[in-house]
Amino acid sequence: MSLSLGEIAAALGGELLGDAALVVDRLAPLTSAGPEAISFLSHARYRKELAATRAACVIVAPAMRDEAAARGACLVVDDPYLYFARLTQLWKARHARAVPPGIHPTAVVDAEARIDPTATIGPLCVVERGAVIGAGTVLKSRVTVGEDCTIGARCLLHPGVVIGADGFGLAPHQGAWVKIEQLGAVRIGDDVEIGANTCIDRGALEDTVIEDGVKLDNLIQIGHNVRVGRNTAMAGCVGVAGSADIGAQCTIGGGAVVLGHLKLVDGVHVSAATVVTRSILKPGQYTGVFPFDDNAAWERNAATLRHLHQLRERLRALEKNAASGQTP
Amino acid sequence: MSLSLGEIAAALGGELLGDAALVVDRLAPLTSAGPEAISFLSHARYRKELAATRAACVIVAPAMRDEAAARGACLVVDDPYLYFARLTQLWKARHARAVPPGIHPTAVVDAEARIDPTATIGPLCVVERGAVIGAGTVLKSRVTVGEDCTIGARCLLHPGVVIGADGFGLAPHQGAWVKIEQLGAVRIGDDVEIGANTCIDRGALEDTVIEDGVKLDNLIQIGHNVRVGRNTAMAGCVGVAGSADIGAQCTIGGGAVVLGHLKLVDGVHVSAATVVTRSILKPGQYTGVFPFDDNAAWERNAATLRHLHQLRERLRALEKNAASGQTP
Amino acid sequence: MSLSLGEIAAALGGELLGDAALVVDRLAPLTSAGPEAISFLSHARYRKELAATRAACVIVAPAMRDEAAARGACLVVDDPYLYFARLTQLWKARHARAVPPGIHPTAVVDAEARIDPTATIGPLCVVERGAVIGAGTVLKSRVTVGEDCTIGARCLLHPGVVIGADGFGLAPHQGAWVKIEQLGAVRIGDDVEIGANTCIDRGALEDTVIEDGVKLDNLIQIGHNVRVGRNTAMAGCVGVAGSADIGAQCTIGGGAVVLGHLKLVDGVHVSAATVVTRSILKPGQYTGVFPFDDNAAWERNAATLRHLHQLRERLRALEKNAASGQTP
Repeated sequence: MSLSLGEIAAALGGELLGDAALVVDRLAPLTSAGPEAISFLSHARYRKELAATRAACVIVAPAMRDEAAARGACLVVDDPYLYFARLTQLWKARHARAVPPGIHPTAVVDAEARIDPTATIGPLCVVERGAVIGAGTVLKSRVTVGEDCTIGARCLLHPGVVIGADGFGLAPHQGAWVKIEQLGAVRIGDDVEIGANTCIDRGALEDTVIEDGVKLDNLIQIGHNVRVGRNTAMAGCVGVAGSADIGAQCTIGGGAVVLGHLKLVDGVHVSAATVVTRSILKPGQYTGVFPFDDNAAWERNAATLRHLHQLRERLRALEKNAASGQTP
Repeated sequence: MSLSLGEIAAALGGELLGDAALVVDRLAPLTSAGPEAISFLSHARYRKELAATRAACVIVAPAMRDEAAARGACLVVDDPYLYFARLTQLWKARHARAVPPGIHPTAVVDAEARIDPTATIGPLCVVERGAVIGAGTVLKSRVTVGEDCTIGARCLLHPGVVIGADGFGLAPHQGAWVKIEQLGAVRIGDDVEIGANTCIDRGALEDTVIEDGVKLDNLIQIGHNVRVGRNTAMAGCVGVAGSADIGAQCTIGGGAVVLGHLKLVDGVHVSAATVVTRSILKPGQYTGVFPFDDNAAWERNAATLRHLHQLRERLRALEKNAASGQTP
Repeated sequence: MSLSLGEIAAALGGELLGDAALVVDRLAPLTSAGPEAISFLSHARYRKELAATRAACVIVAPAMRDEAAARGACLVVDDPYLYFARLTQLWKARHARAVPPGIHPTAVVDAEARIDPTATIGPLCVVERGAVIGAGTVLKSRVTVGEDCTIGARCLLHPGVVIGADGFGLAPHQGAWVKIEQLGAVRIGDDVEIGANTCIDRGALEDTVIEDGVKLDNLIQIGHNVRVGRNTAMAGCVGVAGSADIGAQCTIGGGAVVLGHLKLVDGVHVSAATVVTRSILKPGQYTGVFPFDDNAAWERNAATLRHLHQLRERLRALEKNAASGQTP
């Protein structure tokens, strides 16, 4: 597993300062890279690590050219992090065993499912009747795609993903629950990645929709009739309740919860573990997390928090008192 | 896929105002229904949508009869939402391909498991020794039911469900952990629905118990020796720690956490993302969520929160001061 | 399924007071044990239950010897909870059907994976190329172990576990995301237990590392390049974001979230549902949970919380005012 610096520059561009014949065996972070590795500097704040690294070559932005060149070989590129991403792809393409497309013999694919011939259905997957899997899409192992759900092109679904289980629809009746059959499906666009054991429920009447370019991490729950807009990314363990409408280019931090029937416009960024309880109609960063503390401090503050409203009333009383005291 | 209004009324009751021969092709929300669709009005607050809808027929409560009839065909019923639920069931029964009961050839079912002949064990499920699957119960694909666990009648388990993995039982010993083998099982009643990738652990000594009519959404964790009472419903991503005893007719919102060994009486409603840290002995709605805000506002408030107890002390001092000032 | 008290004492030690020939059929908690059961008293605070239990024999600490002996047979041991854990193991070893090691015929194991002959690969598991499974390790059903991931000896992976899915690595580019291929793997030590549907992602460049003796409950998400130190235990639904470095002997409560790139030293204990937003460099117990309350009380307090910073400013103003008032 190796590439020369010349091969890298030829494939991905960038200005190479140094020996094009120099060969690297792996990609590594600056701090652990040895003379066999290529590394990258994504932010100037890591420049100290640049000076100290033993990497054979470092990918840097134009502003760091002189500093990097003084140290050894470097690749000067507009966006080192993006370049690094492309280099990981090049690396994988060159070194990973190619998995030929097709349906693994242990997968259970309904005769009425439509699988593009360039798609890959991995071991022990289940694709139900009427499901559609687009060109170049890969279902790793143990993925379920339910009836009539459609997955676009170039998607990647990791093990354990469940697309198209029933949404959670129940009508109360005499203390028990009557099931609302979920007659919609799930429609997933192109270039979507879905992490391990993530679930996207089918819609009640209409479809749950995941637009092009959406990236979902592991163990995420997407309820029925949710829309997730183009290029939105969600970190692990997020829960999105039914009929939430999330815009494009949003990011949702790990463990966050978005309640049902809310609207988040494009460009909303929700911090990890935040609970979104009302619609957000203005782009920006939103947060709601209890600041953690050592347990004793937390206990004192949490106990007081349960009387916060009273505290405000007492403060008001003092203010009135002070105001009247000042008016002789 | 179509039904006439007359067929619907004949099957489910209700008073039909309009042409019994009129045929609908789908169920749809009021706002997106066209003349090919039947819709429903669940709350008077959506009456504006009633006026505007293009639906062929609307299911309404008696109070809305005149308004609905003025617009076109309608079905007048006591509880439109319940009627809608039953209509989805009718729809599915008429239009979905019937899955014959039985064990899919790719399922791995122990010879000593007892599967009712009317049950359905889907593709790639695992049913271990001594497990019991009741009449009419359906395990969709990729469900595991562990040794000696019992599932009642008419249950529905979605893909990826794990029933009867070991509870998390550990005894500390010299800095390491000694496993407590989990000798109990899981007992699930009738008419229980369990969402995709949800896990219910087996008990340590006695059984984990899920009573009749319980509805669990996706990605829920139920620890060992928990009891979930009759007809309780939990939304996605809930975590219930070991030995919690949750009553009947409760609802637990998405992402909520119930700590171990707590008791929740019947009729407790826990809001989404709330952490239940002590027993709840009175029915009602309970909440504990940090209100989210734009990030800057949150930062200010969260920083202050870490000094809340001190604020109270300062307020007390001022009050004392004021009181003594007033006593000349 | 039965053991005599003599057999138990011979296998596990302890001082038996009572009839060694007495046979017990099951292990049970003090409160539900009948004369066919053996039970244990883990804490003196349950001594009332000791007096009332109908158990044939109770495992107790030396301090409880007289109280226990007065009641009936007992086993006096240094650490009753540890002894109980070992008794569950003895019970299981004696009574459970031995599962012979080997690869279940429905498992999909790559020819280039290395499976120790004493390991057990259960039904419908997937083990990819280059993966290594150590001696005595058990993969229950439906576990995926990805390419090049290594699992040590005596590990137990519950159904639905996913080891080595891609970490969530993305570089932003013109409003879309470019995938960072995840070139690292997952390295898991010896004696690790991993709960149902838990996911551990492969590293971006280097490996995600789970050290010896770690115990993970169900539905946990471990991001790429995380390190979890020796003997650390995490309860269900925890999320650990990428590159977090968690020390040894830590405990992380259920539903807690640890953000990325943070360091937790050895011996840190995080309470359930706490969000760790900065590194913790001192051992101890840490908590950050919004105290729940009845909904109306919560609403009042939460509304006030959104103005907490202002409250502090108002308090300051009053304090100044009071101070200047006192200085004539």
